[in-house]
Amino acid sequence: MTIAPAEDRLTAQIAFAVEIDKLKRVIRRNLLMDGSRRENDAEHSWYVAMLAMIFGEHAPPGTDLQRVMAMLLVHDLVEIDAGDTFIYDPVAVAAQAEAERAAADRIFSLLPAGQAEPMRALWEEFEARETPEARFARALDRFAPILANHNTEGGTWPLFKVTATQVEEKVRLIAEGSPSLGAYAQELVRLSVTRGHLSE
Amino acid sequence: MTIAPAEDRLTAQIAFAVEIDKLKRVIRRNLLMDGSRRENDAEHSWYVAMLAMIFGEHAPPGTDLQRVMAMLLVHDLVEIDAGDTFIYDPVAVAAQAEAERAAADRIFSLLPAGQAEPMRALWEEFEARETPEARFARALDRFAPILANHNTEGGTWPLFKVTATQVEEKVRLIAEGSPSLGAYAQELVRLSVTRGHLSE
Repeated sequence: MTIAPAEDRLTAQIAFAVEIDKLKRVIRRNLLMDGSRRENDAEHSWYVAMLAMIFGEHAPPGTDLQRVMAMLLVHDLVEIDAGDTFIYDPVAVAAQAEAERAAADRIFSLLPAGQAEPMRALWEEFEARETPEARFARALDRFAPILANHNTEGGTWPLFKVTATQVEEKVRLIAEGSPSLGAYAQELVRLSVTRGHLSE
Repeated sequence: MTIAPAEDRLTAQIAFAVEIDKLKRVIRRNLLMDGSRRENDAEHSWYVAMLAMIFGEHAPPGTDLQRVMAMLLVHDLVEIDAGDTFIYDPVAVAAQAEAERAAADRIFSLLPAGQAEPMRALWEEFEARETPEARFARALDRFAPILANHNTEGGTWPLFKVTATQVEEKVRLIAEGSPSLGAYAQELVRLSVTRGHLSE
């Protein structure tokens, strides 16, 4: 591995920093909790990193929360090229994998050698969902929109005709990363159905 | 210190998580790098936490970058109540301190005991700017808008009649946290003056 001279490294880091500003313009499906507008990927990434700090004690013992936070900060960067995918659209989800890999190739390689690889590895780990850290990070990534939709009378669930059965699949992913947050999310889904904000 | 039962702790954590969603609606002065709109505090907080990952090697040796990241994630939460202050308005900056302290009292105390204190301590550390971690975090917080303004032909500098002399005071804060980023920021300011995007 060639290490670039200090000045070249800084230039590459600046190019990456300028590039990732674009994440603020990638719009997600779910709304802010006051229902005023749809959320963007950058503020979502901040939010889920905060959830890692807030709900850290709900991760399995021994989970490296620092890596969870780092993973959540970078997990959506590939959407700068690949865009946000609606998780309840199976066709879009399948096509997305290849687009995200190409995006990772381009975006992470803006960083200097020696720095691009570990940052990309965080994204790969998040996607693979094999480590406790990745499972907990994914749980928080799923928990956030359920909390937002619950707090906005169903939010975008009725709009996109999402059913409780579909949401419950996502709740299972939460439970795999954190049993207690999974149980709480299950209760939110039940309440949303009771209140008529989510169809069965 | 009384430790709340597990269920009460989760309820308090959820209340805090719902509260901090409001940070997405606190609007800052500076623009996104495409100039399309002003930035909000939540996406800004994500961005500067990313800068800690990107520019970590520009911190003094031994700097705890994990604490820098955590500090940057929480550093603007008080603005949910106190609002964003334009750093080039000295009257507003002075009045802000008390408002931010009251905001910290209210917002962090939503968290359970044992969790509120360490999270508030991150904000206090950031504000005090006494540790290498706080100085580096503050440097990144100042570096971000200079990079954004440089990339948007001066961005909000001309609009708010900010001069190079005023920006250079902020550059000195960057240099105190990171000499190499300070030197780079100084060069950006010089270039912005040369290009007519910042008046002397």
